[in-house]
Amino acid sequence: MKALVYHGPGNKAWEEKPTPGINLPTDAIVKIYKTTICGTDLHILKGDVPAVTDGRILGHEGVGIIVETGNGVTNFKKGDHVLISCITSCGKCDYCKKNMYSHCENGGWILGHKIDGTQAEYVRIPYADNSLYKIPAGADEEALVMLSDILPTGFECGVLNGQVKPGDVVAIVGSGPIGLAALLTAQFYSPAAIIMIDMDDNRLATALQFGATQVINSSTTNVLESIKSLTANRGVDVAIEAVGVPATFDLCTNIIGPGGHIANIGVHGKPVTLHLETLWAQNITLTTRLVDTITTPLLLKSVLSKKLDPQLLITHRFNLSDIQQAYDTFGNAAREKSLKVILTAN
Amino acid sequence: MKALVYHGPGNKAWEEKPTPGINLPTDAIVKIYKTTICGTDLHILKGDVPAVTDGRILGHEGVGIIVETGNGVTNFKKGDHVLISCITSCGKCDYCKKNMYSHCENGGWILGHKIDGTQAEYVRIPYADNSLYKIPAGADEEALVMLSDILPTGFECGVLNGQVKPGDVVAIVGSGPIGLAALLTAQFYSPAAIIMIDMDDNRLATALQFGATQVINSSTTNVLESIKSLTANRGVDVAIEAVGVPATFDLCTNIIGPGGHIANIGVHGKPVTLHLETLWAQNITLTTRLVDTITTPLLLKSVLSKKLDPQLLITHRFNLSDIQQAYDTFGNAAREKSLKVILTAN
Repeated sequence: MKALVYHGPGNKAWEEKPTPGINLPTDAIVKIYKTTICGTDLHILKGDVPAVTDGRILGHEGVGIIVETGNGVTNFKKGDHVLISCITSCGKCDYCKKNMYSHCENGGWILGHKIDGTQAEYVRIPYADNSLYKIPAGADEEALVMLSDILPTGFECGVLNGQVKPGDVVAIVGSGPIGLAALLTAQFYSPAAIIMIDMDDNRLATALQFGATQVINSSTTNVLESIKSLTANRGVDVAIEAVGVPATFDLCTNIIGPGGHIANIGVHGKPVTLHLETLWAQNITLTTRLVDTITTPLLLKSVLSKKLDPQLLITHRFNLSDIQQAYDTFGNAAREKSLKVILTAN
Repeated sequence: MKALVYHGPGNKAWEEKPTPGINLPTDAIVKIYKTTICGTDLHILKGDVPAVTDGRILGHEGVGIIVETGNGVTNFKKGDHVLISCITSCGKCDYCKKNMYSHCENGGWILGHKIDGTQAEYVRIPYADNSLYKIPAGADEEALVMLSDILPTGFECGVLNGQVKPGDVVAIVGSGPIGLAALLTAQFYSPAAIIMIDMDDNRLATALQFGATQVINSSTTNVLESIKSLTANRGVDVAIEAVGVPATFDLCTNIIGPGGHIANIGVHGKPVTLHLETLWAQNITLTTRLVDTITTPLLLKSVLSKKLDPQLLITHRFNLSDIQQAYDTFGNAAREKSLKVILTAN
């Protein structure tokens, strides 16, 4: 089969690899129908994720059709259309039993990381019963690719951890795909306001289309003063960090009001300074989270009932064999005005 | 009347001051029966709390007898024995209605801070209906002084924010009065283990008497290795910071396990470094809180039903007029082996 293979920082190739087979009775082999590229894949290509070694097939998102199952798989059979979760969960370890699949002792984020991933014609999915979700007939399979990672990440790490509720003033720092996923799912809970903060006017315009009530361009506006004026000097109830650098984290801690929730989604590469000399008395809650994908069934139902439209996040489409070009488009998001790209296998 | 008056950093005097009267219809005047000294009073005396100005009567804890009430006070009358909360709450503002009395727009921590406090023969208590609690006849009034601040602080900021539950491994960093208050109240929820960490063997011995299951002297032991060995390398479920310096906060972030809760109680004077480059994916929750004293009624019932014995925290007793000597004893805790001191008016 063909697959996108990592060959060290800056190097990747669309090349021939052996088609995967069943290793363990709990495995399934999925023929990829549609997949996508994640910001994390760009991090890997920069060399930021040393656990990814030369020869690894990238990718941890996608939908496809089951072509083979191990003897231990009972929920799925050949021919089933499935959504692949970015998180593999055994369902049996202490962490899985606490609904913390992200830290599954036998899985977690392993696809396109510690084992071969989904940017390929076929992929082996361990613990298939817990790591795949059946797609009902007639569903928009392309839209469901957004449920592999980006929507549960925005929802669980941002909206649920931030405890967004009716009446809240929510600020989302970063209007990229993850911030927009948080914006879409925050609206489940009818907050009073969702303020989107970014440095790119194009992305902020998208945020307004997606339901933001206000936008602030932090490169041209004093964010603190704007937030003070929007909140009668109180600060926001929820600040969602969807970038992953010290400056955006710091901004969240500056705009949060007493009793507020700071929900970190961003993948950070550096420590941050936490101003406990003021925050110790501010009754704040700060959360971090690698997505658990425990809300995938909930999100699937929300898409099917049209309460959530993940199609909004898809801006570009390519054949899977043109994945190198898709990486260029996704990697130059500001120039290309790209959010998520869809890759379809022939 | 006589009162302990702050006269700038390092200076205080037991001197004559006018006896307070009713200013507003919601006030009550309380004759102090017993009061105590808080670590925060020592901070004030170092000049760390600039809002406290020359001439201020210190103190925010105590029990006493009502001698006068304003026309608007309906819950209390002359002669009632009352517990004074360290937090004054109007009961009417947005924050009070969210049970966040600490940020009451008309109160909060004001006693011995922005208005005259309890280290005096008499004190004026604003919003008496919401800021005082009736003491039932026959109760141990001395023990109840611990409910003005220290027990709700350890309980709300440490145990409740840390979400201590049965089966948890809890670490408390700092075995001073506040850490010990967290230790006592953590036992309400029957955690599997409570590990007390301090540099003073005497305080750790006290912690063992108070119910700690393990103690670690951080000046002689590698805490990280000890915690790894006690938790099968997983880290603790709850880490309670009860000191307020960068090193102890850092320790909490190093010993916390995936999915764990770090509950900060410490009053910090400096920023800390938060290692988001690892913690972003650890699904942790970090909380800060100025005590709201919303659990005072709960704690009062726990003391009356003998589920909680605050007497354990009291090591020294003085006449109120000997308060300067009491400050010396409380301020030299290691030498004097002191926890909380009780000051009784004649």
